[in-house]
Amino acid sequence: MTPSTEAFRRLHQAEQPLFLPNAWDYASAAALAGRGYAALGTTSLGVAAAAGRPDAAGETRAETVALARAIAGLCLVTVDLEGGFSEDPEEVAELAAGLAAAGVAGINLEDGRADGSLAPPEHQQALVAAVKRRAPELFVNARTDTYWLGGEHATVTETLRRAGAYLEAGADGIFVPAAADDALIAELVHAIPAPLNILFLPAHHRLDRLAALGVRRVSCGSLLFRAALYATVAWADAIRDGEPPPPGKLPSYGAVQGLVREGAAG
Amino acid sequence: MTPSTEAFRRLHQAEQPLFLPNAWDYASAAALAGRGYAALGTTSLGVAAAAGRPDAAGETRAETVALARAIAGLCLVTVDLEGGFSEDPEEVAELAAGLAAAGVAGINLEDGRADGSLAPPEHQQALVAAVKRRAPELFVNARTDTYWLGGEHATVTETLRRAGAYLEAGADGIFVPAAADDALIAELVHAIPAPLNILFLPAHHRLDRLAALGVRRVSCGSLLFRAALYATVAWADAIRDGEPPPPGKLPSYGAVQGLVREGAAG
Repeated sequence: MTPSTEAFRRLHQAEQPLFLPNAWDYASAAALAGRGYAALGTTSLGVAAAAGRPDAAGETRAETVALARAIAGLCLVTVDLEGGFSEDPEEVAELAAGLAAAGVAGINLEDGRADGSLAPPEHQQALVAAVKRRAPELFVNARTDTYWLGGEHATVTETLRRAGAYLEAGADGIFVPAAADDALIAELVHAIPAPLNILFLPAHHRLDRLAALGVRRVSCGSLLFRAALYATVAWADAIRDGEPPPPGKLPSYGAVQGLVREGAAG
Repeated sequence: MTPSTEAFRRLHQAEQPLFLPNAWDYASAAALAGRGYAALGTTSLGVAAAAGRPDAAGETRAETVALARAIAGLCLVTVDLEGGFSEDPEEVAELAAGLAAAGVAGINLEDGRADGSLAPPEHQQALVAAVKRRAPELFVNARTDTYWLGGEHATVTETLRRAGAYLEAGADGIFVPAAADDALIAELVHAIPAPLNILFLPAHHRLDRLAALGVRRVSCGSLLFRAALYATVAWADAIRDGEPPPPGKLPSYGAVQGLVREGAAG
């Protein structure tokens, strides 16, 4: 086990849950790493939208790999691989092994499909098992989109069936995005014998409450990317309309140039 | 003259100054275009930092071209080419002609160099002239960094000498970033016989005041990119610290996916 993967694994067993901001380009990653976050995720929506591609459609393998390689040296990094960018478990394992060799500490693999369906659990098991054979040290966070996609699969029973299958195949953690209310989260924590990752939903969650419920990892998904897009338009509109811009002291031109220089030197 | 270049040129002669927000990736461009801005610039700092490269160092030709091609269909677009990404005027002209063929309406060419010096005016004249020979319809906004870089060159005399030289070579407009105070801006407007572009500085400027001074074009440079970076970190910190996040209704996941679909369909 490399120092980075071991350190990342330990963050799932710490006193406080691992809080993961999610980056989508070098600058967002460097700004967050420079702020002291020990680990970062990536957001597939952010990576895809920045490139003008749809999310969860398996179209941004190249962009995802380029970002992962660029930011792996900034801090501990876990990479959102959507469904693995291939239906072939060996191709997914090859991709994951390449990322591990580049210093990436973990990956996410999701069972949601672009058409709104869920992959068969056996397919996800094959992906997870292939990745763990090729890169046993990589923290594989298996995401099940039962609640994210909604509909008939959005039940505790189906979620636990899938979580169990993915853990049996070797997954290190389970991610259930769109799990919103305390009772559901408590039930999942209780029933899943591995670190549970919850997607932070500003309307529902507080970090201390999620910690009290026993959640081991809280990630931001596309939230920070959407906050950045919001700020972009809000600032433009404020200038155009002669209104005061949103509050806050923006980083200077020099500070942004410095992010690149420090990252490159690190 | 293509419809887009003609429409872009006309925006420099409208009742109100052309206000240009600056994008750095597909998503920021699509969000701004979707908000109704008729024209967008790009920010070389944003493009470079997103890719983990320094600004103004001539290192992001490929990223700049890819972005320009991706967003040229969203609305009228003018592209920040730093110093042209080459010392050879014919190479710069080739680049500019390719962008014009892809639907880009204008470009910026700056005389500031990565080492903090200014290129000889004759060099910039050669670039502008070569571009205008190859792509006469392209709006060439010649940027002089006399005030941006500061020091001994930050004088009205040197700025006007360079503006005159660039216009003589065929430039369509002049951009003087870091021109802050009203008296200086009024003097430049008065003395430069072409549309003057001012970089919006939140601490100094209001759009209506710049309009009253006779400024024909106001751009945001890296401001929106830095606002996005600020929001990214501010949201992450707020969640981590259990504080209320910055105000504002963020775009939903579906809205961001929609930006990509609409842009691709347009």
